[in-house]
Amino acid sequence: MPQLDRPDEFSLIAKVFAPLSAEAPGAFGLTDDAAVFCPGEGMELVLTVDAIVEGVHFLASDPAGSVAQKLLRVNLSDLAAKGASPRGYLLVTSWRADTTLAWIEEFADGLRRDQQSFGIALWGGDTVSTPGPLSFSLTAIGEVPRGRMLRRSGANVGDDIYVSGTIGDGALGLAAAEGQLGGALDDVQWLVDRYRCPHPRNALGPRLIGLASASLDISDGLMADLTHLCECSAVGARIEAPLVPLSPAAIRAVEANSSWFGTALTGGDDYELLFTAPPAKAALIEAAARETGTPVTRIGVVVSPEEGINAVDSQGSPITFGRLGFKHF
Amino acid sequence: MPQLDRPDEFSLIAKVFAPLSAEAPGAFGLTDDAAVFCPGEGMELVLTVDAIVEGVHFLASDPAGSVAQKLLRVNLSDLAAKGASPRGYLLVTSWRADTTLAWIEEFADGLRRDQQSFGIALWGGDTVSTPGPLSFSLTAIGEVPRGRMLRRSGANVGDDIYVSGTIGDGALGLAAAEGQLGGALDDVQWLVDRYRCPHPRNALGPRLIGLASASLDISDGLMADLTHLCECSAVGARIEAPLVPLSPAAIRAVEANSSWFGTALTGGDDYELLFTAPPAKAALIEAAARETGTPVTRIGVVVSPEEGINAVDSQGSPITFGRLGFKHF
Repeated sequence: MPQLDRPDEFSLIAKVFAPLSAEAPGAFGLTDDAAVFCPGEGMELVLTVDAIVEGVHFLASDPAGSVAQKLLRVNLSDLAAKGASPRGYLLVTSWRADTTLAWIEEFADGLRRDQQSFGIALWGGDTVSTPGPLSFSLTAIGEVPRGRMLRRSGANVGDDIYVSGTIGDGALGLAAAEGQLGGALDDVQWLVDRYRCPHPRNALGPRLIGLASASLDISDGLMADLTHLCECSAVGARIEAPLVPLSPAAIRAVEANSSWFGTALTGGDDYELLFTAPPAKAALIEAAARETGTPVTRIGVVVSPEEGINAVDSQGSPITFGRLGFKHF
Repeated sequence: MPQLDRPDEFSLIAKVFAPLSAEAPGAFGLTDDAAVFCPGEGMELVLTVDAIVEGVHFLASDPAGSVAQKLLRVNLSDLAAKGASPRGYLLVTSWRADTTLAWIEEFADGLRRDQQSFGIALWGGDTVSTPGPLSFSLTAIGEVPRGRMLRRSGANVGDDIYVSGTIGDGALGLAAAEGQLGGALDDVQWLVDRYRCPHPRNALGPRLIGLASASLDISDGLMADLTHLCECSAVGARIEAPLVPLSPAAIRAVEANSSWFGTALTGGDDYELLFTAPPAKAALIEAAARETGTPVTRIGVVVSPEEGINAVDSQGSPITFGRLGFKHF
């Protein structure tokens, strides 16, 4: 095993990670066995966890800071989809023997930047060594008004279907990172950045409580996650494909090769919100979008379960996709 | 990659893990993005996370059920040390391509058994694949009366020092599992079982609120964790080594080779509680021990920080140890 400049576990926690807990009194500077947190009056806790593995969810060559930010943001995206406001997180890091202190510090710096952006702090964690790939898991904790968490179930026939932001940038960004996507260098880099570092919709999410009838975030792909929402709600869905919002870079990719449109609608890693709401809420949803600076687009309508889940083209004909979304094995 | 009998991620969660969430309404049968939990009136949340890696924290040949139970129990031990009553947990599993469904089912069955023993349920998690060793992380969530979580800080000069159960069985059990420990087969097997499957003190822990001045659980070894407690409390400690409770199997090991005594006092994996309390609380601590069926032994006294942290023999002479405890790298 190579001699490393890396401090031992306790020093690493004290020097690199404890500063990330400074804003959370219940984290005790990471010096105790556990963290303590008391939700506000009338609030309850929302908890979610996601893990990423080198070679599976990120590449060894990805910048450490963006690996950390993606790990944090995919969890924040789950909280946003549930209408929860993020409060803190617990972090498990599995370092290889040859992971350098510089890499770990860059990883922690990515977290530090995002903590400021999203108003959260590190509450605790665990640090282990592994003979395998770098692996991380992160538990994010948020708060919602009691009994009001947005669910995947709850969509009703006749509800509008909305997405935030643009769809497909994550999947096209992965293709770009793997060198499969041609086009202008600026577009390629922008899409790669979108894949590496999603922008969870934490400003919009809590505003959807009382408006959205069902909600989730798009991680497996628009059509796959729409299917999850429909199954939980026992409804069908009709997406009008021309309404699905694409970024300028994605539009140019699709113009060059129309098969990327299927990738955009079925690929994963969007981390945009997909939600349903009764038509009567349309004006309030527009207001929430405007006030939080979050683009929101109506892309279809909830239909009866017998009609199934379809995306239709401008002639109203169903589009067939080769695959429906990302499965982890 | 071998053809496996294993279902895909979604089926695995639905078939094997969702049943573990049946008792937790806020887990939604693992069908949503996040879990929701509302602490009881006047209570707040205590959160802790621990990870284990194949080849580092457990052996590939260990029974899957006991691997799962150890993962859960080391976290429950942290909650016990903080005086918290366990409520639920989130689980991250990283499966290798060749992990069989049978192994995963045995793993889940270990969790199921312990859920019943400890009155908890699975709230959520994440399932990923890994090219590396099996890895698991578990976030445990408990409740304490608001503001009353037991801390590592708080020990005062003159306080008594207590431990629950017996000390050193985990470290001697690891030595036994590695074939380093001679002696009767029954003793060897009993110690190996103690190493593989700790018995966290969740009945006693919550009873120590209002009695203990400081508390943690012994995972790195008695002397190392005593040092952690003393550093957080800015005190010293004098342990009377002959008072440290050993199991009959550990006593026989030490009688055969006295060097195992140092292993017992400095080895890790005890998952017993180490706590301090003013002498005036002695009768109440005895009562809590009796009523919860948990052996508790006074092993020393808190002294001034200038006196340092020592274990002394029956003549009052300090004992020197070769190592102070387990560090993770």
